[in-house]
Amino acid sequence: MARYRLLIEYDGTPYAGWQFQDRQPTVQGAIEQAVAAFSGEEARVTGAGRTDAGVHALAQVAHVDLVRDWPEETVRNALNAKLALAGDRIAILDAARAAPDFHARFSASARHYLYRILCRRARPALCQDRVWWVARPLDVEAMHEAAQLLVGRHDFTTFRSVHCQSASPVKTLDRLDVRRAGEIVEIRASARSFLHNQVRSLAGTLKLVGEGKWRKEDVLAAIAARDRKACGPVAPAAGLYLVAVDYPGDADGSNQRASSRS
Amino acid sequence: MARYRLLIEYDGTPYAGWQFQDRQPTVQGAIEQAVAAFSGEEARVTGAGRTDAGVHALAQVAHVDLVRDWPEETVRNALNAKLALAGDRIAILDAARAAPDFHARFSASARHYLYRILCRRARPALCQDRVWWVARPLDVEAMHEAAQLLVGRHDFTTFRSVHCQSASPVKTLDRLDVRRAGEIVEIRASARSFLHNQVRSLAGTLKLVGEGKWRKEDVLAAIAARDRKACGPVAPAAGLYLVAVDYPGDADGSNQRASSRS
Repeated sequence: MARYRLLIEYDGTPYAGWQFQDRQPTVQGAIEQAVAAFSGEEARVTGAGRTDAGVHALAQVAHVDLVRDWPEETVRNALNAKLALAGDRIAILDAARAAPDFHARFSASARHYLYRILCRRARPALCQDRVWWVARPLDVEAMHEAAQLLVGRHDFTTFRSVHCQSASPVKTLDRLDVRRAGEIVEIRASARSFLHNQVRSLAGTLKLVGEGKWRKEDVLAAIAARDRKACGPVAPAAGLYLVAVDYPGDADGSNQRASSRS
Repeated sequence: MARYRLLIEYDGTPYAGWQFQDRQPTVQGAIEQAVAAFSGEEARVTGAGRTDAGVHALAQVAHVDLVRDWPEETVRNALNAKLALAGDRIAILDAARAAPDFHARFSASARHYLYRILCRRARPALCQDRVWWVARPLDVEAMHEAAQLLVGRHDFTTFRSVHCQSASPVKTLDRLDVRRAGEIVEIRASARSFLHNQVRSLAGTLKLVGEGKWRKEDVLAAIAARDRKACGPVAPAAGLYLVAVDYPGDADGSNQRASSRS
């Protein structure tokens, strides 16, 4: 038995999210099918983050146990070949042998998300399904300032989905940065773990601040309300990317693409 | 009568190229339909560069004459609304009144192209149809050095399509830079004008250098041959972007997106 750690890029557009669902295309389901097609084994693929329908990943992490001990590059190449054959929009960037106690979800020490807003008058032609298109100008400095009020340990009930299964709404948000990169407004969020819809709820609220509809006090009132109804609109899935997952013991503390393995 | 200068972004994937063709989806045809749908006028839209099937544009320039003198933002917004309605992957970034003697194609003083190679073992999941995927490592420094041999005034017969309609194969290449940006190898090419398939022919040849299959002497021999058969493979359309067109008299000499107009 060998445990493999997978680094995975995907276009969330055609999928009903990460998590397996019967009769729905899911990222987890597609990778499990690719594992079965190449190894003949019915193995569970466990991901670090259960991204929602339409949400993308630059570097999701997952683990899978295989009875046979394949070379790492065979696992990566064979999975990519099967995924390509099935027309999936999923790429295995890396497959590496992992310790038997490595768990993609429970071992993770931090998750990093990026939310991208395309802020310009004209709709996107080249990055459709990759951004939230906002036609009106946004005050990025005001958004960043308001975001700092949300950093730290808070009860995030306002910013979680009613479907959230987390035991507690109290989470520590380590980073919430907003900056402009050309026509794109980037929101970067880091935490040990997030509540369901938390990043999209934060992005939707920060957009209200950027438009001048909410001030800092409104953000403080929203979080203090501990009430889902106090939240701004939830930002669309297409703008959200899981960009990295950290594990203790990783060389530089972050989960970089192990391109040297190729 | 008013002449408008349009700044246009498009995803070339679903189109048979810029130039109008009967019974084929083309970028020019789609914009002309949008012009007709909004203004009722059958007007010709003349582009700066006739990009091939599958080639993208971040900032193509075109001009169109309309009988009625519409406000600039009406032209932009109405065209975008009609293009969205038709499901086109085309966005009008800007529409500006232009002098009657402005000609998108003949007034252009320089054209700038970007060719993007995704260089990594795993196939693309998020940027499919946006890059040329090359699985083997490329020596980017060797590519850049070889590229400098091609800069300047040359007979580019080796690097033009047999279908090229240009009167002369002699062109002056002002810039051909190769650099790495993460997993992407970027080739940037600038000239007053290009031959048909020239950038893709240059990119295909530089890839041979990057792989170590060709040395600098082979590149020199290829251009000296003045023979299409001496060219490396033509790089796929999906990696090519028309990124800017310059006109004399533009404020900074380059055609920036006029975001201040929005």
